[in-house]
Amino acid sequence: MTQLAPSAKALVPFVSVDHMMKLIHHIGIEPMLRGLASYIESDFKRWELFDKTPRVASHSAEGVIELMPTSDGEVYGFKYVNGHPKNTAEGLQTVTAFGLLADVGNGYPVLLSEMTLLTAMRTAATSALVARVLAPKGSTTMAMIGNGAQSEFQTIAMKAICGLTHVRLFDTDPGATAKCAANLAGYGLHVTACNSAQEAILGAQIITTCTADKQYATILSDNMVGAGVHINAIGGDCPGKTELAPAILHRSDIFVEYPEQTRIEGEIQQLAPDHPVTEIWQVLTGQAPGRSADKQITLFDSVGFAIEDFSALRYVRDQIKTTGLFHPLDLLADPDDPRDLFGMLDRAAPHPHVASAK
Amino acid sequence: MTQLAPSAKALVPFVSVDHMMKLIHHIGIEPMLRGLASYIESDFKRWELFDKTPRVASHSAEGVIELMPTSDGEVYGFKYVNGHPKNTAEGLQTVTAFGLLADVGNGYPVLLSEMTLLTAMRTAATSALVARVLAPKGSTTMAMIGNGAQSEFQTIAMKAICGLTHVRLFDTDPGATAKCAANLAGYGLHVTACNSAQEAILGAQIITTCTADKQYATILSDNMVGAGVHINAIGGDCPGKTELAPAILHRSDIFVEYPEQTRIEGEIQQLAPDHPVTEIWQVLTGQAPGRSADKQITLFDSVGFAIEDFSALRYVRDQIKTTGLFHPLDLLADPDDPRDLFGMLDRAAPHPHVASAK
Repeated sequence: MTQLAPSAKALVPFVSVDHMMKLIHHIGIEPMLRGLASYIESDFKRWELFDKTPRVASHSAEGVIELMPTSDGEVYGFKYVNGHPKNTAEGLQTVTAFGLLADVGNGYPVLLSEMTLLTAMRTAATSALVARVLAPKGSTTMAMIGNGAQSEFQTIAMKAICGLTHVRLFDTDPGATAKCAANLAGYGLHVTACNSAQEAILGAQIITTCTADKQYATILSDNMVGAGVHINAIGGDCPGKTELAPAILHRSDIFVEYPEQTRIEGEIQQLAPDHPVTEIWQVLTGQAPGRSADKQITLFDSVGFAIEDFSALRYVRDQIKTTGLFHPLDLLADPDDPRDLFGMLDRAAPHPHVASAK
Repeated sequence: MTQLAPSAKALVPFVSVDHMMKLIHHIGIEPMLRGLASYIESDFKRWELFDKTPRVASHSAEGVIELMPTSDGEVYGFKYVNGHPKNTAEGLQTVTAFGLLADVGNGYPVLLSEMTLLTAMRTAATSALVARVLAPKGSTTMAMIGNGAQSEFQTIAMKAICGLTHVRLFDTDPGATAKCAANLAGYGLHVTACNSAQEAILGAQIITTCTADKQYATILSDNMVGAGVHINAIGGDCPGKTELAPAILHRSDIFVEYPEQTRIEGEIQQLAPDHPVTEIWQVLTGQAPGRSADKQITLFDSVGFAIEDFSALRYVRDQIKTTGLFHPLDLLADPDDPRDLFGMLDRAAPHPHVASAK
């Protein structure tokens, strides 16, 4: 067989799960969370030039599969991500993801990457970036309610970016709390396992909710939340899935990524469609106020937006240039003469023409 | 470093360009085109149960990048595809593509495949499947106008599926015609190179147009097309890009894949939005008539639809089970305990905790 090596244009850098883990350890998890937050912040600050659309969702009884595309006019990116709450019981991840960057000018992909780990990293980096501008000054303590796959990432990002020193854990499953506490040992944080959500929020300036039930739930009820806190609500992220009592929403100033998507998927699906919200990019650029009073309750109603994935993929693309932590993937057919796709195929045959024409 | 092999769930079969070429040669190009047509036909016959949406397009001055998702309720599929007409001049493919299948039940990807070659194969298989029911009985001769990357695939599919024996080639670039004629040698067809589109259509019962300009063009003018032919219009496939004079459309019975998409992208963007068209799946199920008179002009206004890619990916998935022509790709993070994504990452560190907590 004629075995020609693919040309450089045909090869797309691929970051596997193994390479992503090596990259995180090479950079260090805290520096990488800060690096991701910095890329996300710079993309949020040029929010208006992005091509934005609510994600393209395919819902089923068991969960959802989504495509999240965006573009800054030079680079195009999208993420494939699923959400299947029942997966955990079957030994599978609730959320898996991968993503791609491409050159807008010629449409050729330039990066394919695992994004299960990267999504956990970028979600935590986004939460901490937002908490940095919304949480009370000098916040030291976070209640982490829901101690699943995202909990350690959230906690370490709040340490790396907001100076968190104490975390108070609660999960309806004590095994999840024990797992989270064990994973956080050695990261220089005071970790307290709590027996109820109410106990977890004692003394916390930041309250993060991140549970996975695909249903309306009330992780926080109205009487649990006092004045002067920042709520980082991660788990309410698809239609029918919320975590907060509506009364809390009415007492809070609400900040969102992309209102068109959050009104469908976030906590605010419980509110009127014209309930006032502030877009977080406007806080970052100084066009809108963030926290304006000590007693204010700020709420980041986070559902995750395509630009965060775009930023994370941009960060990875820049990092692998120097580390070489990728495989070249033979993803694109690239004949010498672009009109001669068939010829490339035909000349690769064991016995050109004759064998092919059977 | 603790180097654990990824679990089977974490590995997604990946069909590279090299593997796709080997698969085509292993099966044989004509049997594979027939196999693809058979999968496409069976999916078209269960059209109504698919989750259908016009593709999600990101347009730029240079071209378009599109995501084409669909689902039959059990399997989800999507294709990434670009269209950049100016790429050819820069030595790049106008169209490159890759695609994915996933399990709707848990959202895990089950196949990732190159689709530049596969798109050429499925487009040709679809054209021939449609010509089989719409072209005049006993058609032997096709005019192939536009002799670029798709032309040989179209011709061989018409031979394999419709019994074509003669093809008449024309392209504004004689080099493209020479390339196409050379590639078709040895496939048992009478090949005639022509000096004009008018000459190419002499005696042809099937006229295929497949040119790549991103603009309104008139590849066929009204006076060139006589009665009793089938027109297979491939190249009009995005807004502003058409190939046929409107007068031909008015003389034809028009068949389309998915009207919602074709009215935006196909030849019929030149017509009123309520101009009658027939959906090809209804012809295949017997719910609508195909060709009903010898003198009728039938027109397949083909733009390519997500279900054809879904069928093609299904076919490839079934074929690689026995041939082993794929690589297992480490795309999905899959910790032993699904809630312990962080622990999987942390335990893979060269120096757990200490090195990571820098």
